[in-house]
Amino acid sequence: MVEPSGLLAGDTRGVAKALSVVERGGREAEELLRGLRGRVGRARSVGITGAPGVGKSTLVQSLGLALLKREERVAVLAVDPSSPYSGGALLGDRVRMPDFLSAGGFVRSMATRGALGGLAVAASDALDVLDAAGFDWVVLETVGVGQDEVDVASEVETVVVVTVAGMGDDVQAAKAGVMEIADVFAVNKADRSGADAQVAAIEGMLALAPPADWRPPVVRTTATTGEGVEGLLAAMLEHQHFLDGGQRRREAHRRRARRRVERLLSALIQERMRTAHREALALALAEVGEGDVDPYTAARRLLDGFCKERP
Amino acid sequence: MVEPSGLLAGDTRGVAKALSVVERGGREAEELLRGLRGRVGRARSVGITGAPGVGKSTLVQSLGLALLKREERVAVLAVDPSSPYSGGALLGDRVRMPDFLSAGGFVRSMATRGALGGLAVAASDALDVLDAAGFDWVVLETVGVGQDEVDVASEVETVVVVTVAGMGDDVQAAKAGVMEIADVFAVNKADRSGADAQVAAIEGMLALAPPADWRPPVVRTTATTGEGVEGLLAAMLEHQHFLDGGQRRREAHRRRARRRVERLLSALIQERMRTAHREALALALAEVGEGDVDPYTAARRLLDGFCKERP
Repeated sequence: MVEPSGLLAGDTRGVAKALSVVERGGREAEELLRGLRGRVGRARSVGITGAPGVGKSTLVQSLGLALLKREERVAVLAVDPSSPYSGGALLGDRVRMPDFLSAGGFVRSMATRGALGGLAVAASDALDVLDAAGFDWVVLETVGVGQDEVDVASEVETVVVVTVAGMGDDVQAAKAGVMEIADVFAVNKADRSGADAQVAAIEGMLALAPPADWRPPVVRTTATTGEGVEGLLAAMLEHQHFLDGGQRRREAHRRRARRRVERLLSALIQERMRTAHREALALALAEVGEGDVDPYTAARRLLDGFCKERP
Repeated sequence: MVEPSGLLAGDTRGVAKALSVVERGGREAEELLRGLRGRVGRARSVGITGAPGVGKSTLVQSLGLALLKREERVAVLAVDPSSPYSGGALLGDRVRMPDFLSAGGFVRSMATRGALGGLAVAASDALDVLDAAGFDWVVLETVGVGQDEVDVASEVETVVVVTVAGMGDDVQAAKAGVMEIADVFAVNKADRSGADAQVAAIEGMLALAPPADWRPPVVRTTATTGEGVEGLLAAMLEHQHFLDGGQRRREAHRRRARRRVERLLSALIQERMRTAHREALALALAEVGEGDVDPYTAARRLLDGFCKERP
């Protein structure tokens, strides 16, 4: 059992221990989260997402350093889709961002969680842990561009989508999947030819979007030299300032609460299905596997055996 | 209402219409799938997956052409995470694989489905449609490397994971997430420096895997010139031959049935929750949004109001 006390005192070992608890999941994680009630909601959260190879890690390190220079406490949570099989060993926390670490930043990688709710639940819980531990900023870095990443990115207040020129059609398509969630666009490797065209392409897509109160700025960065990182930080701060207007930050937190509850509920339902309703499930699966029943018919029958019509 | 008759006659317009139905989802898709019961299970299915920028589309086209030359009927289903907002317009079906199309191949892109179950359900249903329509091979191409892609790839019998040398750490990490699902590895752009190192890295990881009946071969390809594509096809056929041994293909089909039913059931449960249990859900979300209740407690309360203890 992890006591919230060490965590709340902001002690690094307590934080690391608490993060391991939420990564493992289970009852202990639930208890920990219950203990944090009323102590979260202060940290600013930023997600950095984009296709592999665009230079997210270098950009996150530069951003982290820029925030540390402003005397902010900064934690980076890197979410990797690496499997238990590879054990997340490919990206060691310490190897990834040496300058950020030696300047006093906190880094933690998080791999797939087998337990209740998977990676998005674990990442969301980790965000609360870092928030309660007193970090001013939590930067969530995601690897990849699938639904997982969209899910994880939607946990944060400000989403930065990183793209780069000249990676081919696939990247264009991948980018399209995260267009709606971007609050800021960074075109990284801005010293490359094609960067202007990339900026123009994104601005072209934005021009087609329905009008909204916030229009995502498009910022050029060269993470390896640090060029443009201050501009990116300014765009992030501008979006944070925007969130302070009206009920926007509260609404963002409510949306996050909705997603968390829905995700947990869905995981709990699956768990109960696999335990209390195990035999009905096994029978249905055998019938579909043999081609005797189509999957829709089987799923509807199971639903009726499982769900109350009314609360 | 789409009649299975035109579809089963293998007429291209009937197939295209049926694919639109499963893409839209809803009751009409359910009816269509019910009509296909007993008519699926003959086609060989292959998934081609990997990070953006590795050259999957070109490789898929070369593979498709190689299969067409052997007088096989081939359909390519390209699964794009593009959003409704961009409308999937970035990758037109006809623009992508001109040679494959003019040689008589069938191509269809599928974007995110808003209806029941999302993209993985729609892709799985589309696979059945193409199977019932009499295609010998269905090649499923996925864009991206997140959980969505892993889900979709697990619908097929043979999974080819495409990688490429020199795309940085992100790709290494992303690759790790799909290590377990690969039946064949292709190292594309094999003419680049670093290809040997990439092959060695994959073989090194495979050497760490627990022993199994099937050891994924690692094949070098240069999709742009067609070099190595015959070797990749041979590796795929070898894996298909392996599936013919014992109960392996049957087991693969059962695993797929399990995932489909679980996915549909989970979507149906969410649907019922949002309708019949709407008020309880709204109350719980408000409490969590205000920080009065933690998300785990809220989810457990909802579960008890929603689920029968026993079937």
